[in-house]
Amino acid sequence: MGRDDGGGGNRSYGRKKFKRSRAHFADRITADGRDGWPVEAGRYRLVVSRACPWASRALVSRRLLGLEDALSLAVTDPLQDDRSWRFTLDPDGRDPVLGIRYLSEAYDRRETDYPGGVSVPAVVDVESGALVTNDYQQITLDLATEWAALHREGAPDLYPRARRDEIDALAEDVFQDVNNGVYRAGFATDQEEYEAACTALFRRLELLAGRLERQRYLVGDTITEADIRLFTTLVRFDAVYHGHFKCNRWKLTENRVLWAYARDLYQTPGFGDTVDFDHIKRHYYQVHTGINPSGIVPLGPDLSGWTAPHHRAELGGRPFGDGTPPGPVRAGEEVPAPGRP
Amino acid sequence: MGRDDGGGGNRSYGRKKFKRSRAHFADRITADGRDGWPVEAGRYRLVVSRACPWASRALVSRRLLGLEDALSLAVTDPLQDDRSWRFTLDPDGRDPVLGIRYLSEAYDRRETDYPGGVSVPAVVDVESGALVTNDYQQITLDLATEWAALHREGAPDLYPRARRDEIDALAEDVFQDVNNGVYRAGFATDQEEYEAACTALFRRLELLAGRLERQRYLVGDTITEADIRLFTTLVRFDAVYHGHFKCNRWKLTENRVLWAYARDLYQTPGFGDTVDFDHIKRHYYQVHTGINPSGIVPLGPDLSGWTAPHHRAELGGRPFGDGTPPGPVRAGEEVPAPGRP
Repeated sequence: MGRDDGGGGNRSYGRKKFKRSRAHFADRITADGRDGWPVEAGRYRLVVSRACPWASRALVSRRLLGLEDALSLAVTDPLQDDRSWRFTLDPDGRDPVLGIRYLSEAYDRRETDYPGGVSVPAVVDVESGALVTNDYQQITLDLATEWAALHREGAPDLYPRARRDEIDALAEDVFQDVNNGVYRAGFATDQEEYEAACTALFRRLELLAGRLERQRYLVGDTITEADIRLFTTLVRFDAVYHGHFKCNRWKLTENRVLWAYARDLYQTPGFGDTVDFDHIKRHYYQVHTGINPSGIVPLGPDLSGWTAPHHRAELGGRPFGDGTPPGPVRAGEEVPAPGRP
Repeated sequence: MGRDDGGGGNRSYGRKKFKRSRAHFADRITADGRDGWPVEAGRYRLVVSRACPWASRALVSRRLLGLEDALSLAVTDPLQDDRSWRFTLDPDGRDPVLGIRYLSEAYDRRETDYPGGVSVPAVVDVESGALVTNDYQQITLDLATEWAALHREGAPDLYPRARRDEIDALAEDVFQDVNNGVYRAGFATDQEEYEAACTALFRRLELLAGRLERQRYLVGDTITEADIRLFTTLVRFDAVYHGHFKCNRWKLTENRVLWAYARDLYQTPGFGDTVDFDHIKRHYYQVHTGINPSGIVPLGPDLSGWTAPHHRAELGGRPFGDGTPPGPVRAGEEVPAPGRP
């Protein structure tokens, strides 16, 4: 979740170990509406930052599942200010649907003077303007399952029932060592804490590379939630985590297997077409002044390799299982092609 | 010179452009002694930090020329304190020959209450304990020429008379864009200044790679001063400049020609055997708290590639011209093998 990663005054840089909070608002939007939030086309708005890996999971799932019509999208400015995520990319600095300038306003409508951090992804109830959930670990699982009635024709099964234990176990390891591991390395306040995180990160990546050497996707032979969760960290790896977070044993481009795997996904409709490297780089380098006091954004790395052939199709696999790829990106939701070559 | 790169309180991080000072003490040690400092075996002591690229030029030249007996060596701690370079690696924290704890003491003996910065390389007159020169641009040229009478049998001609114009012109471009360019990028205080430095750096590196594509060394077919000056920046590139100074268009290991060229030199006696990656990494990451507030030293990159085959001998060239390689490293001056694999 784009919250306690240094932005918007929500994270302390004190001498304590980096800890990622659990989502505070964990209501679920379900088919049966048992939490009071039934799945319903047009009722909710998904708020993301394209910079944020946790929010980007939801961006990918929404595309793969064809939920664009059912669940509208608000994209925040990649740079938070002291009131956190804001809609400064929109005309007059207001989200055109919710009519608010700061995502925090939706939090406040849910819980008056909510004192915690404001994070993306967030799902907001359009009519009341109140936040429903910011549960970054649950949102995509619910999109894949509870929202099934609204999926597009040919949507893949991203969380197949028979594979859930395997996906969950893998996702937990990936969360600890990779998704959150890069943050633990980058926000470490002493050498020991950094080294433990960095070592565990690269050990896990090596294990994952071994698994992906002869297998196109992480679980089974189709794209699942597990791939989405690994992808959103890998796509940021060289652009941000390698230098800014000191995760620099090697670049992703230097790991043959993971680099081909990441490129394969990047070039799959629904993945790369959600990625905005400019938002990503500006967010991390300009917001985390605690680790980059100058706020200068590096010119590198060369991103042109993301579109190079990956040859992973030779491993077989059926990306969408019995389904089909998603159609083109919705008008107004396009992202620029990878940065300067 | 290891001075105004952020350590020891000698550099201001204010909103002004990074400027490298010229050496203040520019006396020359010459064969004819015209500045009062004649070349003489055993008379002077070379003070370096192995972290510093400017000082490392002198380390390489001294080895290649076989000046170890004539010119003794003091190695400072890679971490300056508020009194700058210090001899904390020596017993009782004192240089055993000069008897001082801080290099600044030699500066003070030369000029009472010298208010400027303390830099390496420095050459000190042993008897008086006074600094003779800290002229990082001139010291190696004089070692190559004025000190000829004390060179070892088979020493190469590092500054051949017929090639001096070419070497000087190349060295000037390399100084501006590469040697000093990485500092201008790393210490930039605004985006524009950084981008200008980073762009010029990589443009120059591409040009140099073109020159070295079919030619083993920069000038002629033997190792010269020009190669030494480029090497001391290249050997630090991935370990420090890529991440810490944001020179991250690509890693050295990603540039086929320059990476092979740098490895070739690294594996040539007199080059790699002067390089201490531990000193290099700790110095930059721990001293420059203005750009790395945590002081954490990254675990990466993997340095094992430095000893991989380079195949540059296929381009011909005679590394030492009519001379021979230097002998083994002097006892007590050995450096550890490249960091953790």
